[in-house]
Amino acid sequence: MNESYNSALLDTAVAELSKLPGIGHKTALRLALHLLRKDPEVAIALGSSIVEMRKGIAYCPVCHNISEGGVCSICNDNHRDHSVVCVVENVKDVITIERTHEHSGVYHVLGGLISPLEGVAPSDLEIESLVNRVKDEGVKEVILALSPTMEGDTTNFYIYRKLNGLPVEVSVLARGISIGNELEYTDELTLGRSILNRTPFAK
Amino acid sequence: MNESYNSALLDTAVAELSKLPGIGHKTALRLALHLLRKDPEVAIALGSSIVEMRKGIAYCPVCHNISEGGVCSICNDNHRDHSVVCVVENVKDVITIERTHEHSGVYHVLGGLISPLEGVAPSDLEIESLVNRVKDEGVKEVILALSPTMEGDTTNFYIYRKLNGLPVEVSVLARGISIGNELEYTDELTLGRSILNRTPFAK
Repeated sequence: MNESYNSALLDTAVAELSKLPGIGHKTALRLALHLLRKDPEVAIALGSSIVEMRKGIAYCPVCHNISEGGVCSICNDNHRDHSVVCVVENVKDVITIERTHEHSGVYHVLGGLISPLEGVAPSDLEIESLVNRVKDEGVKEVILALSPTMEGDTTNFYIYRKLNGLPVEVSVLARGISIGNELEYTDELTLGRSILNRTPFAK
Repeated sequence: MNESYNSALLDTAVAELSKLPGIGHKTALRLALHLLRKDPEVAIALGSSIVEMRKGIAYCPVCHNISEGGVCSICNDNHRDHSVVCVVENVKDVITIERTHEHSGVYHVLGGLISPLEGVAPSDLEIESLVNRVKDEGVKEVILALSPTMEGDTTNFYIYRKLNGLPVEVSVLARGISIGNELEYTDELTLGRSILNRTPFAK
């Protein structure tokens, strides 16, 4: 297939766009032609926002969440409870949990989950820095908020063992039936777990 | 829903990305976080290729195809037959027809199709400039290569009427059964047309 469009500039933009996950060659061409049809300001705003974002955003040295230089806004927030640390897989999970407005503590972003199949070892993740935070900063509770998958459970268990002996409470997200879902369509494992972990019907 | 991610730079990039057609807020966030995980060069290459493309690409004053300044490479090519002009809806169709390697003439990009429903009038399209090209540049044949839709047929007929009386041949793409398709699944209109327009079985 001839991939040249009589314009090296268009070729380059299409090639760069098609490197994005889930965007193939045809979609990249459609997006590029869309930008060519619109006012120049639209494309320039998009292109420079991407460059500015990548240049301006770094990672917080404390929790490894994204930050626009130095310690992130969550770690800098004195109204938050710095003795409760919620451990998440990635930056997206920080956003997801922030949206619930149920966590008033701080975070620790691991940067992935232990996965021997994908070659992710504990040393590739921010586990040691978590242990050091617990040791040095008077953390009272670590909430493990990882995905309920095999990799998540392995990582939970690894962290639990690493924190063993330290004066810290380790908790994990409750597992049970999803609110709003039909019982009929809940998988047996989750349903079984929700029976074992049933809670008193209060209020 | 809270759309802020503790970083104005990330917010802006996500907002700009989600202006693209077919890219919603969630996909935009996924793309932005993907770019943050990769080396800075990846995001900078993408962002600047978009800016460079939009700044560097203009439209050819002759055929209205994209061009990196002045007359485009197809109109500038002396090996092509400038007396045969293929009329297409948009820049993408030029690429599609070029890929067939069956057209050795030049192009004329209309920039759309006549559509009263979507408020596109003949004056919004490059029809007058086509008529002027035919009058002034000794064009011998105009090939109408528009989509076989109601809008395409309306535009075909309008251009045909406009060129009426000028010493130019007007042809239209052959319509018939698609090569490789089962006859069983061909729509009746196309099949009927292909019987009416049957060609001698030669060679």
